[in-house]
Amino acid sequence: METVSVNTAFGGVQGVYTHASAETATAMTFSVFVPEHEAGAKLPVLWYLSGLTCTHANVTEKGEFRRACAEHGVIFVAPDTSPRGDDVPDDEGYDFGKGAGFYVDATEAPWSANFRMRAYIETELPAVIAAHFPADMARQGITGHSMGGHGALTIALRDPARFRSVSAFAPIVSPLSCPWGEKALTGYIGPDKAAWRAYDACALIEDGARLPDLLVDQGTADGFLEGQLKTHLLEEACARAGQPATIRMQEGYDHSYYFISSFMADHVGWHAERLKA
Amino acid sequence: METVSVNTAFGGVQGVYTHASAETATAMTFSVFVPEHEAGAKLPVLWYLSGLTCTHANVTEKGEFRRACAEHGVIFVAPDTSPRGDDVPDDEGYDFGKGAGFYVDATEAPWSANFRMRAYIETELPAVIAAHFPADMARQGITGHSMGGHGALTIALRDPARFRSVSAFAPIVSPLSCPWGEKALTGYIGPDKAAWRAYDACALIEDGARLPDLLVDQGTADGFLEGQLKTHLLEEACARAGQPATIRMQEGYDHSYYFISSFMADHVGWHAERLKA
Repeated sequence: METVSVNTAFGGVQGVYTHASAETATAMTFSVFVPEHEAGAKLPVLWYLSGLTCTHANVTEKGEFRRACAEHGVIFVAPDTSPRGDDVPDDEGYDFGKGAGFYVDATEAPWSANFRMRAYIETELPAVIAAHFPADMARQGITGHSMGGHGALTIALRDPARFRSVSAFAPIVSPLSCPWGEKALTGYIGPDKAAWRAYDACALIEDGARLPDLLVDQGTADGFLEGQLKTHLLEEACARAGQPATIRMQEGYDHSYYFISSFMADHVGWHAERLKA
Repeated sequence: METVSVNTAFGGVQGVYTHASAETATAMTFSVFVPEHEAGAKLPVLWYLSGLTCTHANVTEKGEFRRACAEHGVIFVAPDTSPRGDDVPDDEGYDFGKGAGFYVDATEAPWSANFRMRAYIETELPAVIAAHFPADMARQGITGHSMGGHGALTIALRDPARFRSVSAFAPIVSPLSCPWGEKALTGYIGPDKAAWRAYDACALIEDGARLPDLLVDQGTADGFLEGQLKTHLLEEACARAGQPATIRMQEGYDHSYYFISSFMADHVGWHAERLKA
């Protein structure tokens, strides 16, 4: 792991790091905020998965998480959204290929060689975090935005024992039911929709996966709400399955970091309550 | 005035606007955050002047001021740092010309036609703010970063009656005493250093200007501290003149928005206390 940059912020250290990923066969960059803490202390970890077109940088610069993380003593980890580099295949669209890994392990050529974001987030990067930071890996929470909200929900639903807390900002709740999902999952894992169910929060809940609870914020003025995000599908899946969920429609908010930053402290506090219980 | 964008944030509205400036003879872009407020209410205004290379966008995206401004009911105005456009003269350096207006009215050709940032900030933009926003212009505060900290201090020292509160993040405290100032003031207003004193916070204090008090935060790990910012010159000028000042050296902080955002809520609170007294 190499250090790209470190900056003192809110009494802690905001770092950006890079390492050679075996899963993606590329260098991968991520950011970590470590609050001020006592020597030898281990802090809970909140994962934040970003949305389409983003890198670690968007939330690191615009997410406004550091004040709340410093207050609650929570490490904040922001990975990239896909492999990068000239040798990595790409698509002309913003919603497939680089910047659009969808947190899946691709099985289709040419994507399968590098697009292994599920294994990267589930296995490889946690080992790097555990090895290099004062992280208590027994206390992990996960959140994310849009495509990253989809990532957070599906990763947690497949492995609820790993996470004490799960939330999302304006998540894609069902790739089976929206154009972004149709395009990405067809491309990465092929046309067999039975295989997609492991990557669909609503389908996972329908198939029996459960979390203790979850928090979702969704803006009513989000231009992707009707055509892509379809929050009501998650509300309906949770209601049918008896999955506890706090899903809040936020009047007037859009899909931007102005929305995310407005509710970030709420989410960090919600995670901290469960991570420190 | 035309609206470039509006986003709901922290219960209020973060807008970006553009207007034709008579002073700069260009279009000028600025951002304004208006917190949620009662119909008909007028809110105090905090001006934030940005540093070299910045536009309104840097602080708007990375400044983390909205939570505190919403809490205290303060409007936050972030102007650009210079005129822009293909017809505006420029310099090869990042520290002169576009993005480096230094909040002066240039008297030297070719700069004098457009680089009238003092008149723009002191007179023209306040009239636009008063006309279009629920702003109580009897309650103004001013702050800024680096070159913008210089702007905030000098504008307030020349017209203390306009501002109830003044602060700065890592300000240039004496253009007479640093390479950035030497280059910019020679270029914009010529070699006569007597004329520079109106644009030098330390000289203004030495020449008798006074504020009720002022707040400055400066990082000890700021790479510009020794060669350009020279905070000690302001400390010494204030001490000699009996000018009340709270000048805080912040251990380990650099010149970036990681530093600014860490202390932004402190500054907004400090201004709010005086603006709402």
